[in-house]
Formats: sequence, C-alpha cells, structure tokens
Amino acid sequence: MRAEIIAVGTELLLGQILNTNAQFLARACADLGVSVYFQTVVGDNTTRLIEALQIAKTRADLVICTGGLGPTQDDLTKDALAALLGQQLIIHQPSMDQIERVFSSRGIHMVQSNKRQALMLEHSDPLTNDAGMAVGIALTEDATHYVLLPGPPKEMKPMFERYAAPWIASKLQGVRPLYSRMLKFAGIGESTLEHELLDLIQAQTDPTIAPYAKDSEVTIRLTTRAASQDEADSKLDPTEHEIRQRLGAHIYAVSDIPIEREVIRILNERKLLLAAAESCTGGLFSDLVTAVPGSSSVYRGGIVCYSNMLKNKLLDVPMHILEGAGSPGAVSAETAERLAENMRRLADADYAVAITGVAGPDESEGKPVGLVYIAIACKNGAAILEKLQLSGNRDHIKLRAAKAAFYQLWKRLAL
Amino acid sequence: MRAEIIAVGTELLLGQILNTNAQFLARACADLGVSVYFQTVVGDNTTRLIEALQIAKTRADLVICTGGLGPTQDDLTKDALAALLGQQLIIHQPSMDQIERVFSSRGIHMVQSNKRQALMLEHSDPLTNDAGMAVGIALTEDATHYVLLPGPPKEMKPMFERYAAPWIASKLQGVRPLYSRMLKFAGIGESTLEHELLDLIQAQTDPTIAPYAKDSEVTIRLTTRAASQDEADSKLDPTEHEIRQRLGAHIYAVSDIPIEREVIRILNERKLLLAAAESCTGGLFSDLVTAVPGSSSVYRGGIVCYSNMLKNKLLDVPMHILEGAGSPGAVSAETAERLAENMRRLADADYAVAITGVAGPDESEGKPVGLVYIAIACKNGAAILEKLQLSGNRDHIKLRAAKAAFYQLWKRLAL
Repeated sequence: MRAEIIAVGTELLLGQILNTNAQFLARACADLGVSVYFQTVVGDNTTRLIEALQIAKTRADLVICTGGLGPTQDDLTKDALAALLGQQLIIHQPSMDQIERVFSSRGIHMVQSNKRQALMLEHSDPLTNDAGMAVGIALTEDATHYVLLPGPPKEMKPMFERYAAPWIASKLQGVRPLYSRMLKFAGIGESTLEHELLDLIQAQTDPTIAPYAKDSEVTIRLTTRAASQDEADSKLDPTEHEIRQRLGAHIYAVSDIPIEREVIRILNERKLLLAAAESCTGGLFSDLVTAVPGSSSVYRGGIVCYSNMLKNKLLDVPMHILEGAGSPGAVSAETAERLAENMRRLADADYAVAITGVAGPDESEGKPVGLVYIAIACKNGAAILEKLQLSGNRDHIKLRAAKAAFYQLWKRLAL
Repeated sequence: MRAEIIAVGTELLLGQILNTNAQFLARACADLGVSVYFQTVVGDNTTRLIEALQIAKTRADLVICTGGLGPTQDDLTKDALAALLGQQLIIHQPSMDQIERVFSSRGIHMVQSNKRQALMLEHSDPLTNDAGMAVGIALTEDATHYVLLPGPPKEMKPMFERYAAPWIASKLQGVRPLYSRMLKFAGIGESTLEHELLDLIQAQTDPTIAPYAKDSEVTIRLTTRAASQDEADSKLDPTEHEIRQRLGAHIYAVSDIPIEREVIRILNERKLLLAAAESCTGGLFSDLVTAVPGSSSVYRGGIVCYSNMLKNKLLDVPMHILEGAGSPGAVSAETAERLAENMRRLADADYAVAITGVAGPDESEGKPVGLVYIAIACKNGAAILEKLQLSGNRDHIKLRAAKAAFYQLWKRLAL
C-alpha cells in the first residue's frame, strides 16, 4: 500500500513549527507495513488543499491528513475533502454531545464555531478524539483510503494509535505485519551503545536493529515481519538475548516507557515511598514522577530547594557547608548527601533523591556548567553518591540530571 | 514569488529523521518575502523525484530542493532536474579541485563516486559548499527558479545564507519583505479569542491576522509586507491597537516568549521574590520557572506537597482541613489559601503560588478530574483565589493549571 502524508497548516509553511507529525505518522506507517512515498505540507487555503488532495489521490492508496480539524475559519480539511469527493458534511452527534458536555462542565458558553469540530463526511467513519474535541474521519472512495486527524500531537497520536491504525490495518490484505520490540536503556549514551553493538548492527538483516536517542534515553528497536507473534518472538528472542549479554545492566524495560514509569512501578509493587530534594533540576524530577498516573501512592513529594536559604531552612544543610571561602558549596557531595538524608527523614520515605548542580548558562561557585551531584538516601543502607559532568544547554542538563537520578534509583531497586 | 520546498531522502519518508531543513528554509523564505505554498518530501527515487519537480514547476516560481547531492547512488537530485529540463550534467572544476584537495590532505584514495559531488547542470550557477564537498546549484528556466542544496543541515544552512539567499533576492524585483508581530495571550482559549476577533479575522487583508495555540498558550501573528520597519509598524500598529481594545488584559508579550519568562522578567526588574507550593502540578510550575535563565535570582524554590503529610508537616495545613468527613479536603479553597500564605512566609518571599487540584485520571475526594484551585499570597495585600475546571488528560491539566497560575501572577504584577 502506497501512502501520502499531508500536513495542513500555514504555521508549517511559515516555519513557525516543526513538522513532527509527519515523522510520527511516517514511523507509524512503516510499522504497519505501509510505504510512504510522499509527504506534503499545505497551508490553510481551500483551493490549494483540494489541489494537494487531488494530487495525493492519483499517487497514493492511503492519504493521511493531519491538521485543520479545529473550530476556526482556518480549519478547512474536512471542507476540502468533502468538496473533492462531492460529499456533504454532517454532524456526528456523539462528538457534538461530547463538545457540549465539555463546555457546560467548564461553565462556559459554547461558541457556535465549535460545532465545526463535530463534522464528518456523510459516508465516513468517525475516529474518536480522546484528548480533544475535533472528531477524526476515515473513509474509502474510489479505492483510495482517507484518514483525517487533528493537528495537535497530543490529540493526533492517540487517535492514530487507538483508532486510525486498526482501521488502516483492516484495509491491508496479504501483507505480513511488522513486529517490533523496544529495548529501553538508561545510564548509557547512544554512541557508546552503538559502539558496543556495532558488529550486530552492521550484520543485521532480520530482525533489523535500530538504535535511536530521544529525551536523554536510548532505545533499540528490533523489527521483523512474521505471520504471528510466536513466529516473530522466535526471531526476536535470540537478538535480544545477545544484546542482553553485553548491555543487560542498562536495559530497564522491553516496551516504550520512560524510566520514571518503571521506577514508580517497582516502588508501587514493593510499597516503598519516595521523596526528592531538587536544586538544579528545579522541580523537573518531581514533574516526571507525577506525570505517571498512580504516583501519588508512592510519592510523598519534595522540596525544590533552589535557594541556599531553603536548603538550610527546610533541609538543614549548615550554612558553613553552603557558603563561604573554603566551603564545599551548594554544588558538592556534602550538600547532596545532606539534602538526600534530611529529605528522606522529613518525608519519612524509604528513598529520597537529591540533585544539585550547575544547569547554566553561567558557571556557579566557580564550578563548571554541567557538574551535577546526585545522592540517594535509603532507609536501610548507605547513601549512593554519583558525580556527573553533563553537556548541553540548560534544558538538556536539567533533563539529563533528572534521568540520571532515576537510573541510579532504578539500579538500586532492580539489580 | 511563490515557493515550494522539496526535501529529498528516504530517511524522511521512513520517519528516521525530522525535517528540520524544511522549517529552516520556510523561515528563511518568509524573511526574504517569499511565500512558501507547498512543502514536499520525496524519497531517493528518480521517477518520483522528477514527478515532484514537475508538479512544483507548475505551481511555484521558486523550487528549493534539499538533499540528494552526495556521492552515492541514492543521491539523484541533480540527475532528476537535468532529466526534467533536458540539460547535461557537467563537472564544476573548482569543486572537483576542492574535493581532490580534501582527499589528498586526508591521505585517502578518492573513490570515483565522489566526482558526482562536483556535478552541475550545464546552464546553472554553482553555490559554494563551505562546509562539505557537494556543490549546490541555482538556475532559472522557463521563468522558474531552481535552487539545489545539500541535505546535511551544517552544509545546507551556510550555503543558503551565504550564496542561495542573495541569489534568490536578486530575482525578487519590487517584492517587499514580510514583517511580523507576535501577540501572546494568556488566560483565554483559542476559540474564545477567535470569537472575540472574528470580524477582524474575517475582514483581514493587510495585515493578516493568524491565531494559533501551542502548549496551552494562544498566539496571534500579524503580518504585512512593507518597504521598511517603519512602514510595517504604521500598518501593524492600528490592528494591534484594535485587538488591545478588546483583549488587552490577556496580552502579556509582543514577542514569542512563554508567560513564565515574562513573569520572571517582571519579578527581576522589581526585585521581588517568588516561591511555590505545588500539589497537583507536582513540580511542573517550578520546572517552568527554573527553565528561565536568571530565575535563581528571584525564585526561592518551593515545596511539592504531593501528600497530605507534607501539606501538613511542612506547610501547616491542619489535618482537619485536609481529611475527614465534612472537611474541605486537600483540593479546596481553604487548603490552597493556607498553602500559599504559609509557603510565602516560610520562604520569606514577596509572592507565593499554591496549586491544588485533581490531575486525574481518577477523581479524588469525590471531586472531578480537572478541578483546580490556585491561590497567590503576597506580602502586601490579600490573597487571590481562582477556581478552575480544566479539561484534558493528566499532562494537559498539569500544564494548564501551571500556566493559569502564571497568568494570575502576571495579572497581579502587570495590570
């Protein structure tokens, strides 16, 4: 099956945003065994949108559009497809009901234009939007399949995965599906990982072995085509085994989850409580913890001790350690250890993580940007201390420091 | 001048890499006053590449290609354009000499295929590659301009800026560049904003008025063509003024910055100190504050009081308010106000923000997902309290709650 991805939005043509949707959909199509031959970006303009759809129709069996399903006058994708196919737009009542519920729950008067988000083509299937109001659409006409998705990634991705992908899969006949397995690594960089597996990667044929890095985590994706999950497993297992022989101590999951989710899962399973004292990460560690549903049963909370005043007043780090000539300073092993131990006691937790460092852009206490200390205090046993020299800008250093703290905690819990 | 950007590469179609080149070129075209109407991605396949060029030729005055200029059999862009225009490929001798110099300086034997990187069309201008070996090309035929650039961003960007942009500018006669102004809004949703400005948006001609939403913030971009910044301002000012008349209380910046950055700027300017007590946002508010360089001079830090234990122990909210039959509960105005006031005192700050609510996925204390209380305590004056009913998943609710807190703080500081 030949596919074309059309991303709709003037902000893409102006370069205001990056077309991450096209990448997501391209990967998702590859996973389904669908070949993407073209990607197109077109603005919020009916004539040019119809022109793009017209061209796609002649060269693709599957046309996936993203964007232009919202409530505004600029949201024209459904209108354009309806015009191209000579169909009417009708209201999808369950979506209309849902939109009305959202507005009434917020106590806001619903602007009429929001009704546009409940429109679908008369001969189309609705695709549920679990994260927003605009309903998606799937339909087949003249042997061409069309899938219309919203533009915001947080709406588009779940709609694709839950509703559009199964719909597309149902149209594929005789194509052996792809089976993938994700190995997630922590505490190792992409280039080191690739170096350790270079012979495997270079000799790969089936399964394929694709490493990639994102959000300070490294993933390896093993992929094969097979008639069944069992057949796929029999091809994927030996490769995973070989990788584990070399790097097993860094593999924290065999699915695409961030390390904080695995850490929270283990804590939940063992009924252990966690707390955190954060200086340079400034709340990011806590934010990542609390992004995991169910974290409230293991996470006591923490202190963002961004100033020395709070490090001293709330976490009892003596001022003579934090400041003054010859003192270790706020960015030091001494401070990290006290923050972790005192945070653990204060929250009566089983584990407490402390992170202190220099996020930049300027150095601090004469210490270089990227220097980070991580301490982990635990109820039964000595504290762990890790000193890191991280690279990147302020955002990268915060994220890498937080991820490194999760890795240390995971090592302690899992190995 | 209407432009189309064609990015060439199978790795883009597979989603292995993100099409950052298209964004760079789109912005660069906007700066030159060139309107990009389409972007296309096509793989390393001569037939489909010629097809893409053929379509672009019919709908654009300027076709900018990036990728496919390298030495391998997969690098086909020059061949495709030569085939389309019926031209021969010839060696650009200075580029050939340069390639030979690079190989001999490295002491490596030059593989014959590298010669391909010195090829140009017989009737084309070379574009020097200061960061690599593949020469670029610019030519005009049948009133269509073509610019061929390499794919690696570190080669493409300098070639565009130093050689392609001036070449394109020389083809623009009497075209005035675009001038844009960004208005950033907080505390208002995209659809409400558009409703308030519907008559302006529908009547827009010059300047154009484009609203869009991202990361729980709404932006309006005003754009006009003008001969100078002064002339542009004289066209943009009345529209901005009209928008301010209606929605000025929501406009926190006239540049593309997040609201937390503006809040930190004001606090810095006035030498005011901030602290935060976060329950449902779980550290996200602090993380956003500390993402701003220089925030350490205004941000004392905060407490992520995720458990009632920490709300009580560190922030003195009485247990009879937090728990028990008939109590207001952790998600209540009473709790929010105490968290804010006690956080402010504890940190000796001028302002303290408190956020408590139900982030989901499950309701809590019998209260619905999305219910959020925000309190702001200040040294001189009464606390502000805001009750919100937010929609979305856990991540959205956390982000919307944090942004709403910044908006409340900004209102207090700026208006």
